[in-house]
Amino acid sequence: MKNLLPADAAATYRLAGRVWLEGPTERFLGIGRLELLTHIGATGSISKAATAMGMSYKRAWDLVQSMNAQAREPLVVTQTGGSRGGGASLSEAGAAAVAAFAAVQARFEAFLLAETRRLLG
Amino acid sequence: MKNLLPADAAATYRLAGRVWLEGPTERFLGIGRLELLTHIGATGSISKAATAMGMSYKRAWDLVQSMNAQAREPLVVTQTGGSRGGGASLSEAGAAAVAAFAAVQARFEAFLLAETRRLLG
Repeated sequence: MKNLLPADAAATYRLAGRVWLEGPTERFLGIGRLELLTHIGATGSISKAATAMGMSYKRAWDLVQSMNAQAREPLVVTQTGGSRGGGASLSEAGAAAVAAFAAVQARFEAFLLAETRRLLG
Repeated sequence: MKNLLPADAAATYRLAGRVWLEGPTERFLGIGRLELLTHIGATGSISKAATAMGMSYKRAWDLVQSMNAQAREPLVVTQTGGSRGGGASLSEAGAAAVAAFAAVQARFEAFLLAETRRLLG
């Protein structure tokens, strides 16, 4: 590919991409949901996690509901205490999902880097 | 991941994704552009390739212009003969780009399959 592109392509072009775990009816986990889970684990709050990601609370809540509905056990556990008052935390299943998908994402990033080098190096 | 998901997850969940070659200002090649180039090579016509992909002629033309502008030599060569009258063909560079990106795509699909098995197998 290198010889088809501008001379500085090795510095300016790169293979980019996205991966996600697709379920029978909808997405289960992708990089955005992974980040959301990570923020929920770090902040103890869906609302704070949404703010950290520049995402509406409703959007974050919908994503959590989608993941919880698809998993055998909820990935995010919410404490009662009003619509935005209660805290939230990752369950053991949630922590395991974060770890497993973060590993997939890391291997994907290594793939992208290796392919970029192969194409342009 | 398997133990977090429904019992039939190995049959119903899969890692999905997209990769594309990103240039300094815009995308250079992705699966859609690869398919467009392949159709142009097969039909000898941007218009027929657009129709085959359910894409407007303008969209197909814009994608071809984007690729041609970024490559050292045009990937698609058009013959004169009116706005939609002339034919189009892949240049040698175009054929090389198709081959190189199709190989990336094939390795990516192997990656997705291997990761799906790793997560759910």
